[in-house]
Order: sequence, then structure tokens, then C-alpha cells
Amino acid sequence: EIAAAIEARLAAMAGGRPLQGRHVLVTSGPTHEPIDPVRYIANRSSGAQGTAIAAALRDLGANVTFITGPATMPPPAGVTVIAVETAAQMMTAVTAALPADAAVMAAAVADWHVANAGAQKMKKDGSGRAPALDFAENPDILATVSRAADRPRLVVGFAAETENVIDHASAKRLRKGCDWILANDVSPATGIMGGSENAVTLITADGAEDWPRMGKAEVARRLAARIAEALT
Amino acid sequence: EIAAAIEARLAAMAGGRPLQGRHVLVTSGPTHEPIDPVRYIANRSSGAQGTAIAAALRDLGANVTFITGPATMPPPAGVTVIAVETAAQMMTAVTAALPADAAVMAAAVADWHVANAGAQKMKKDGSGRAPALDFAENPDILATVSRAADRPRLVVGFAAETENVIDHASAKRLRKGCDWILANDVSPATGIMGGSENAVTLITADGAEDWPRMGKAEVARRLAARIAEALT
Repeated sequence: EIAAAIEARLAAMAGGRPLQGRHVLVTSGPTHEPIDPVRYIANRSSGAQGTAIAAALRDLGANVTFITGPATMPPPAGVTVIAVETAAQMMTAVTAALPADAAVMAAAVADWHVANAGAQKMKKDGSGRAPALDFAENPDILATVSRAADRPRLVVGFAAETENVIDHASAKRLRKGCDWILANDVSPATGIMGGSENAVTLITADGAEDWPRMGKAEVARRLAARIAEALT
Repeated sequence: EIAAAIEARLAAMAGGRPLQGRHVLVTSGPTHEPIDPVRYIANRSSGAQGTAIAAALRDLGANVTFITGPATMPPPAGVTVIAVETAAQMMTAVTAALPADAAVMAAAVADWHVANAGAQKMKKDGSGRAPALDFAENPDILATVSRAADRPRLVVGFAAETENVIDHASAKRLRKGCDWILANDVSPATGIMGGSENAVTLITADGAEDWPRMGKAEVARRLAARIAEALT
């Protein structure tokens, strides 16, 4: 039986499908946090990088569960899609999708939700003052998965920074307890958020590795190949 | 010369283009109000109704200036498109586009913007508390256009309500100083916001007129025909 398993893995690697039989979780896109029935807080993630990563992992043979917020691009074919809107819903979906061999948390999850979201549309009251919004912290999905009893063998987080990218991302890796962080600079001047290219730094326990600026599909293929190496 | 003008108008009406030579302004879509470089406040408007209205007015011969927030659907062909993001930008674009014979203000404009929006991405500080957002009221585009020195002859506003639709919309008509309000119920249960159908009430100085539930393109054609009647 062990021999058969080894044989299956060798066959998979030979066929360019080194992740055959592996379950990989990918989160992607923004989350939307309701203010009232018509308003919400969003972020500029298009879901492009997460979608490309899911497709690249699928191409290496992985069984991909793709948990996506309301992205502007359609999910890839050939993966299991779970669509959510809020960070809390994403947390629930991620937990329910475990166990997995690896988790790539590419979603731009809102840090906060509106604790006093209204059941009716908030209206101006003539005072010129806006209704006060009370914010509460969202569950930390990356930290939760990284410390879960059924933690995936490899947990990859993302850091979207606008300043001191490597310092912030390295600190985040330790704070969250994940294995790798793919860090990028999302300053508006870079054109990365919502754009087709990415310039990332892969941060592992061994240090920081700058990747040249390349298309998001190429970033995805490189990352998927690294994940396949790490799992085999 | 007067005879020539009359002849031109008669010819236009005969040809089904009663708005030939008229300039009509249409606003559409949501606005996005930045919180920081990556986060913003949005609303669930898809721009579907405003886009359909611009197309219907164009089909009746109008010269349409289409001022649109970041909508999920593309603008119609054959109109002058001005794309904006925030309420303040929309206000500037609308003012610059006057004079017009009519203005249809279908955009779902944010009532407030974030007065202390950050130039850098806001980060959790470990306190568990969110950074406080200070809101300031946005300019009231509908009221401003309705009271402008070069006010269009016909100003049509929209009211997206979730309760007491007709009462709220009738009060809004008087408060804003516009001529008509097209009111609809955007409660999530109706499926109207972001959907393909609409159930509206046209509120004028003469009272409230319920239209049956119909496709947004049909609402647009009815409204465009009423605008053509009012302007001729």
C-alpha cells in the first residue's frame, strides 16, 4: 500500500501534476462589511491574484477550495467555489473547509466590521452630523488557521502594504504564525491593486526573496511551484 | 428662423426623436468614498437604471452627458461619458456640464465622506479598537442643481428607500426643490438594487403615480417619454 502511494506520487510528479490528491484552500477577493441595507465598506482588491493562484494550483493537480469575497473577476473553472461577502462569513467557510494540505490566504479581508450596522437605510437627520459608526475587529482568519488544531502543513499569508513593506510583512509572519508571507506594495502609484502585474517579496523563515515585477499569472505559477516543492 | 426651428422640431417628433437638439444630463451608479488608499465606502447601486435611462434618452434623440460613478456595468454607447469616483467629483462634473434642458439624477450618491481619510493604509494598533472615522456631509447635488441659476427646466431626482417610500420621497421632492422624484423600495427582499427589475412611483407636483413592476429598460423608456412630453 505504501509502495502504491509512492508510485502514485511519482506518476503525478512525472505528469506535471505534483499536487495531485492534495487539498489546497485559497481565499481571494475583498470582503464587504455592511453599514446598512444599501451601504458597505469595501476595499480595492479585484481578486485577480487569488484567482490566478487557484488556477495555478489546479493546473498542478491540486483539489482547490476557492473561498472568494465579491471579486470583480469570475472564479477559475475546475475548483470548488464558495462565495462569501463578509469577513465573518469567510472565517466560517475557511474553518469548514479544513483539513487541507496547504492554505493560501490571498483575500483582502476587512480588519473591522460595523458593530451597529442598521437594518434600515441610515438617513440624514438635518443636523449635518453623520450617524456614528462603531467598529469592531473582525476575526483574524490567517492567525486562526495558522494556530488551528488541524493546521495545514503550509500556511501562506499575504501582506498588502503601502510603506516599509518588508519590515511590516516580516513582523506579520511572526505575529500570525504562518509559514510564508507574500508581501506587496499596494501604494496607488504602483498600479498593483486592481492591475494585472505584481511585484512581490516572498518572506519565509529563511529571509526575504524579492521577485521581479511580473504578471499576476506568473506570480501565481511561481508560488504554486514553490508550494508543490514544500509539500513533496 | 422661428419657422425653421418649428419645422426642425416637427420633423424630429415625426421621426420619433422628440429630444433631438436637447441636452440632458444623467448621473448614474454609486460613488466610492475613500477611507485610506485601499479601503472605501460604497453602496449597492449597479448603475443599471441610470444606464438604461441614458440609453432611452439617447434613443429619443437627446444629446446625453452621462456622469457615472464606478458602476458594475459599462456605460451606453453614443453618449458623452464622464467617469468619477466620489460625490465631490460628481458634483464638480455635474456643475461643469450645465446648462442642460433636463437633468436626471439617478446616481446613488454617498451622503457622507470620510473627513480624516488616511494617506497610508490604516493598521490595527493592537488595542482592538478601530481608528475613529470622522464623517462629513457631501455636497447635495440634487438640491444644488435644482436651485442653480442655470437650473435645467426639468430636474428629476431619485429616492431609494427601505420604508415609507412615498412619504419619504414626497418630502424629498419638496426639500430638494426638484420637479419629479422616481421613488423605489430598495429593501433587500425586493431584489431591486443590483437586479434587473424595478417597481417605482413617479412623484410630481400633481401627486404619486405607481408604475407596475417592470424591467429597468422599460422604466427608462417610460421616463424618457415623459421627459420628452414635458420638454416639448
